[in-house]
Amino acid sequence: MDLEVRVRSSPAVLIPEMGMSEESYKPEARNPKGFRDEFPAELQERARMLERIEAVYSRYGFAKLETPVIEYLDVLGKYLPEADTPEGGVFSFRDSDSKWLALRYDLTAPLSRVVSQHQLDLPKPFRRYQVGPVFRQEKVDVGRFRQFTQFDVDTVGTASMAADAEACQAFCDALEAVGVPRGQYIVRVNNRKLLNGILEKIDPSFVSDTTEGKCLTVLRAIDKYDRLGEKGVFQLLTKGRKDESGDVTQGAGLSEEQANLVLSFMASGGGSRKEVLERLNKLVEGSSGEEGARELEEIDLFLDATGYGCDQIIFDPTVIRGLAYYTGPVFEATLTFETKNEKGEVREFGSVAGGGRYDDLVERFTGQKTPATGGSIGVDRLLSALQYVGEKQADPKGPVVVIVFDKGRVPDYLKMVKELRDAGISAELYMGKGNLKKQFKYADARNSPAAVIAGGDEFEKGEVSVKDLALGRELSKEIEDRDTWRKQQAQVTIKREELVGHIQKLLDNSEAE
Amino acid sequence: MDLEVRVRSSPAVLIPEMGMSEESYKPEARNPKGFRDEFPAELQERARMLERIEAVYSRYGFAKLETPVIEYLDVLGKYLPEADTPEGGVFSFRDSDSKWLALRYDLTAPLSRVVSQHQLDLPKPFRRYQVGPVFRQEKVDVGRFRQFTQFDVDTVGTASMAADAEACQAFCDALEAVGVPRGQYIVRVNNRKLLNGILEKIDPSFVSDTTEGKCLTVLRAIDKYDRLGEKGVFQLLTKGRKDESGDVTQGAGLSEEQANLVLSFMASGGGSRKEVLERLNKLVEGSSGEEGARELEEIDLFLDATGYGCDQIIFDPTVIRGLAYYTGPVFEATLTFETKNEKGEVREFGSVAGGGRYDDLVERFTGQKTPATGGSIGVDRLLSALQYVGEKQADPKGPVVVIVFDKGRVPDYLKMVKELRDAGISAELYMGKGNLKKQFKYADARNSPAAVIAGGDEFEKGEVSVKDLALGRELSKEIEDRDTWRKQQAQVTIKREELVGHIQKLLDNSEAE
Repeated sequence: MDLEVRVRSSPAVLIPEMGMSEESYKPEARNPKGFRDEFPAELQERARMLERIEAVYSRYGFAKLETPVIEYLDVLGKYLPEADTPEGGVFSFRDSDSKWLALRYDLTAPLSRVVSQHQLDLPKPFRRYQVGPVFRQEKVDVGRFRQFTQFDVDTVGTASMAADAEACQAFCDALEAVGVPRGQYIVRVNNRKLLNGILEKIDPSFVSDTTEGKCLTVLRAIDKYDRLGEKGVFQLLTKGRKDESGDVTQGAGLSEEQANLVLSFMASGGGSRKEVLERLNKLVEGSSGEEGARELEEIDLFLDATGYGCDQIIFDPTVIRGLAYYTGPVFEATLTFETKNEKGEVREFGSVAGGGRYDDLVERFTGQKTPATGGSIGVDRLLSALQYVGEKQADPKGPVVVIVFDKGRVPDYLKMVKELRDAGISAELYMGKGNLKKQFKYADARNSPAAVIAGGDEFEKGEVSVKDLALGRELSKEIEDRDTWRKQQAQVTIKREELVGHIQKLLDNSEAE
Repeated sequence: MDLEVRVRSSPAVLIPEMGMSEESYKPEARNPKGFRDEFPAELQERARMLERIEAVYSRYGFAKLETPVIEYLDVLGKYLPEADTPEGGVFSFRDSDSKWLALRYDLTAPLSRVVSQHQLDLPKPFRRYQVGPVFRQEKVDVGRFRQFTQFDVDTVGTASMAADAEACQAFCDALEAVGVPRGQYIVRVNNRKLLNGILEKIDPSFVSDTTEGKCLTVLRAIDKYDRLGEKGVFQLLTKGRKDESGDVTQGAGLSEEQANLVLSFMASGGGSRKEVLERLNKLVEGSSGEEGARELEEIDLFLDATGYGCDQIIFDPTVIRGLAYYTGPVFEATLTFETKNEKGEVREFGSVAGGGRYDDLVERFTGQKTPATGGSIGVDRLLSALQYVGEKQADPKGPVVVIVFDKGRVPDYLKMVKELRDAGISAELYMGKGNLKKQFKYADARNSPAAVIAGGDEFEKGEVSVKDLALGRELSKEIEDRDTWRKQQAQVTIKREELVGHIQKLLDNSEAE
């Protein structure tokens, strides 16, 4: 079957190996651990959110890209002994040629592959957005799944700070577009080069040692600033720390003075972007950190020019996440309103997006430095936030249900369904085996706006009955026979030819409410 | 980091095992075999097509469902010895608990899992549509990928032929909605029970033996009807066949009379649905096949009531594909216009969608028969067909590009960009390092409708220049310096405050063309 369409499974795939007959085994119907299904209400809300983000990113001039869910493992940054099974958060397996494949764990690694692979065909700089599922084999927790959705926006091939400023602006505009009001979010910007400058002042050998050893110990220590505060981080930077349970964490071995320099960097936030810059400039003076300060100055200039104030974007040296990964500016979008976490504690909602400049990712493939910057929105996390900002939509309306009152009349009922659909109205015939009560229960479960009922009487008179289910939702549950529902006010009998017009009016009214 | 957003990769994931340093290894940037990237032009066309199909299916009252890409392997119908690696078209692997997982290979198996798993919460019947990627580790060929997209629509929990009729109608409406004119497609309907009746007449033991042995040999023989014609199939049904290369295929061992009965079934198509039914009724008289004929009669009644003629939906006993899998009506949508295949031969475009009734799929989990019916559209295949029916869209318009003529003026350029975006116009600053020529080349590569240029002169006079790139696309390639492009008619100089209005008008005009 060369280029034929491939639909549904062929029986060959379904026949079990090992001689077990299909009947002898009943699999349990369940999702794999850490995976879940999504139903209409959530999907509608998600689609609406993604559409709005997409509109913002398109307006920014980014073009859409899609890459496959599967990549070669080495493309994602892992290369393993052939005999071994990969570990560490990536779902991986071999194809029929014994090559290692993996499910993508973010959209950045595929982007750097695309830029290297298609470099002759792509506009330079390459500006793309991409939304899709990514996969991580991590610990499963409430609200934390192994398949989740990211929405990325990046510019590859630009050293201009205009691109970093723009990524922060895009976060602001996207958040406002999906319904987070200004004042309920903040984009916080830091710069890896500032920290490099501080580390260089402490010990110049730190700077060449960016992802491991002492530098990483310092990064890990300051990453706990939120949780442990100044005192705890000071301990971690110097001699180490014993927590309440008695567990001891090794210190980074800095002197008091050196630790205090790191802490004064962390404490240099607050106030306007220019105020933070002033403090930072003093701290990194004479070190390579001056370049980081200059970059932030440029970002500030661009944000000022386009009117993004510090009610939207601030400079904040406590932004640590990703510092080990990014090479220049780093940014994080946080929702600032308070909610209760799973333990019932009141907390700031927290981070929903992050990004930064990564000048060496494409280099892995090409050997050439390719400056790039951008960010990711955690779609599931942002979606879960919308309920707190009053952006939750009503449950999606189901179809108008044409009730099967008389089985011999199905062709006539189908004619009604067809007329409604032709008028653009979602409609269907009840297709189950239930009595009237069950049929109304079904319409209820579908959140149907109306049911259409016609029996011998109606057909004889050229009429049809329409029940406004939104109006009669509660009463309808008690309906047992025609006489009862005939009396209910939510139901009217109209001329057959008025059916489409009547339902249209009913829907218009309910939408106007 | 409990419920924090997860963005981009952590460096831990990127550090290679085995002590190889990141620098010592340069992976080749390439897609896994059988996978591909998708760029804006194709994605725009695909999005538009999916939107239109979705609108049709929503109007039919189907609700959207999404399931994860990953399922437990046994849920998909495969259960294997723990030590073995699964074969046969499914990408599979183990999770960190050593459980076998697999990438879904269609959307029907996940549907049956969902229906079993959520049976208490779902409306009955359950009517859903789902679109998404599926994965098959099959032979790779031109236009045949290992990740492809299906668009499914199903009703689970209905024995009514109205649901089968509806699935056929939905195919017609979807095809017309995406731009395939009536007359260029046909939905062909067959019924597994008819063939059962024929087989029963030949040998009653065939019927209990539906998926293996003799029955399957007969199915395989008649599946070659298209390719081998009546004579070839006759040979395969009786004593076997030697092809041109001398290869011998075993026959099914039917007598001449028995084979002729099968062949007269295959030949009973042609003409109106009622004419085909008349022939079929005679052929299956007295066998269990009568039920199949009754089902088609009912479908015909429903199609007549809703006005779907035999220019859209016909009965055709040569529809074989899926007969081994489905339990009742089987349908297939074919595009009937001719194209050249990869060998340059003129052929009917062929199948783009298929489906049927599968009353025993959910039974695998629950042990209870759950009647269900529906179909899948092969999205990639249908998308590739649209070019032949004149439905190919223009390439997507890129953003208005603000040229960097003077690097000191970037904040002013960004202000222009922001104004354009605020007016809903896609716009961006050129962010690369190129000279004017390169910048215009970039705008060209992005298919930009206009470029905005301003230097010292313009800023002094409060003016700005706008180049209509659609108009001047060809000439612009030769632009080397300001004097040349100044003279070109496609470029006008306007007051700075007229920028947004001017571009808006330019875009409106180009859309009206």
